[in-house]
Formats: sequence, C-alpha cells, structure tokens
Amino acid sequence: MQEIERLIQLLARLPGLGPRSARRAALQMIKKPDTMMEPLARALTDTAAAIQICTTCGSIDTKDPCAICIDPKRNGTQLCIVEEVADLWAIERTGSFLGRYHVLGGRLSALDGIGPEELNIASLIGRLTTQEVTEIILATNLTVDGQTTAHYLTERLEPTGVAVTRLAHGVPVGGELDYLDDGTLTAALKARRTL
Amino acid sequence: MQEIERLIQLLARLPGLGPRSARRAALQMIKKPDTMMEPLARALTDTAAAIQICTTCGSIDTKDPCAICIDPKRNGTQLCIVEEVADLWAIERTGSFLGRYHVLGGRLSALDGIGPEELNIASLIGRLTTQEVTEIILATNLTVDGQTTAHYLTERLEPTGVAVTRLAHGVPVGGELDYLDDGTLTAALKARRTL
Repeated sequence: MQEIERLIQLLARLPGLGPRSARRAALQMIKKPDTMMEPLARALTDTAAAIQICTTCGSIDTKDPCAICIDPKRNGTQLCIVEEVADLWAIERTGSFLGRYHVLGGRLSALDGIGPEELNIASLIGRLTTQEVTEIILATNLTVDGQTTAHYLTERLEPTGVAVTRLAHGVPVGGELDYLDDGTLTAALKARRTL
Repeated sequence: MQEIERLIQLLARLPGLGPRSARRAALQMIKKPDTMMEPLARALTDTAAAIQICTTCGSIDTKDPCAICIDPKRNGTQLCIVEEVADLWAIERTGSFLGRYHVLGGRLSALDGIGPEELNIASLIGRLTTQEVTEIILATNLTVDGQTTAHYLTERLEPTGVAVTRLAHGVPVGGELDYLDDGTLTAALKARRTL
C-alpha cells in the first residue's frame, strides 16, 4: 500500500485537491491504469524533460525563446505585463491580444518579502532598450499587491517614455449591479463612457 | 506546448479537477519539477506496476491476497460488504472495524445496466462456502441504488443462514436537526433507542 499512499500524498499537494479528492483521483487512476495512470506518468516525464523558461519574456514553453516571442505575426511593439504564466494563458485564451508578453513571476509583496529584485523587472527594462516597444499594458491583478506592482512599474517606466496603459476596470460581462462589490461599482462609475 | 496541454487534459479528467484547476495544478508542478513533477511521475509508474486486485475480497493492494485478507489479527467471521474500495478505506480510517471486507465493485443500477453478474456477488457467495462467516454487515451507500443492492443481497444471502446486519442510519455526529433532510430525520426517529 505504500506506493498508493505516496501517490495520494503527492496528489493532495496539488492546488484544488485535498486529501479526500486525492484519494478519489488515485482510485480512479488505479481503476484505469492504461488510459489514465500510465499516460499521466508519461505526460509528467515528457513535460519535465521538455519544459523551458523563456529568457526573453519569462513564460513557460518547450523552447526558448518561447513560441510567442519568436512568432513574426505577433506585434512586438506592444508588451502586456502579467504576474504569472496562468494570467498569460488566460489572455491568450481570449484571442484578443496580438502583442507579446512579459511575465513578472509574481507581485510585489511586503508581507511575503517580495521586492522588485525578486521579479523579472530588470529584464523588462532591458527589453525596452533592445526592442522597439511603444506601449506597455499593465495586466497585473486587481488586488492590493497587484495594484502596488502596477504603480511601482508605472514609476519605473516613466523615464523610458513608453506609453503605459492598464486593463479597464468595471462591471464584468453578465455582472448584476446588485451583486457587485462597492469597489468595482465605484471604478465602473468613475470610468463611465459616453455612448 | 503540446506536452503541457496533454498534461492539462489528463489532469482535467481526474475527479474534482476541472480545466481551470488542472491548469493551475500543471503550472504549480512545472514550477517545482524536482519536488512535484518527477516524484509524481515516479509514484504513478510505481503504483501502476505494483497494483493488484485481491482475488479474495476485490480490494486493491500491492499483493494478492491483500494485507487485510491475510492479517491473522482480523476477524474473518465478520464480512463488511462495501460498494467501492474508497468505502473500505473510509471504514478503515475509523479504526473501529476489525473484521474483513468484500468489495462489490459498484452497485446494482438498472439505469447503468449493472446487474448482479457485473458485481463481485458470486465470489461473495463462494467465500461463504469456503470460509466460516457468522455475520455480514451491509455497508452500501444510503442511495437508491445502494439500498437496492442491500435488499438484493439480503435476499440472496437468506438461504445461507448467515446473520445479515446493516449500518445504523440516523443523525450524523455534529448534525443539527434543523439542517437535516426529512429522510434522515425520519430514519433517526424510527430507529430511536431507549437511553
């Protein structure tokens, strides 16, 4: 049984899985060794072997530079700054951004002791000197730490003269006003537009 | 990226993980290849190689017969009948049952076309002829299918003369009456005991 217990322990450390769902997942895999357990083991080994961090943008891919950084159809003059690779994937899924990215690898956080040196900020400044960039879109999260990071970046980028924009904030699509928090509603009111 | 996408697809098929949490899990593993990805790949390979179905009770272990079936400290005259291995594990975690088990491998379900032949019922009847069993505890789930299975087993086991019991039903520990469903409350009332 120790193999199974070790498997459950490892699964339980994944985000979104607790001990109970890890047990259920392990049992489901055990029932389907050929279609679940072995393919997953192979996918993990393959991914571990193939994964690379893009030295240009900090994203994750199986080559360096990553597919987005070398794609000639992407507009290199627009850089979208995100905290994590997951945020980059979220924007890519919309299919509505055709520029390139820069992944910070986190957010400024006094509490967690994350300063500017812990983030990929030096490499961002470096990119601005070697590549022609005309717009930087700040797409950090709308949390306290994300906002702090955005403010810090705005100040750091000011001397470069590159235009800095940020994602619009307001009522989400499908959002009902009655259920919205006050902060979002205030932001939506302030940023109201003429029809 | 196709390695990562394949990994996410496989993770998303686990119970309790959807596409979003599968992406988060994959990213977390990618960030920690040495402590998460490779150990998990190894645990999966080890488990796939080691796993066996116990030919006596239908449980899962790394040997056959399983540890419970050969444990001389377990009381072989009490057999607890469960639907799935997960249920066996749940009872084992309580530490309050010292008999042995029989895993049906599912429940009777007209809807899913699961009849008695699809479950480990023949092997249960077989055990009663070769082993000395004095009590069978039905621990199927308290669902319609689980109850149907319990009723079917009660009838099938009647000719053997073995005492058949089932788990008590009633108010769960910590349960507040106001939040309980009517069925549980009715069962608890019917099964009331003198103090």
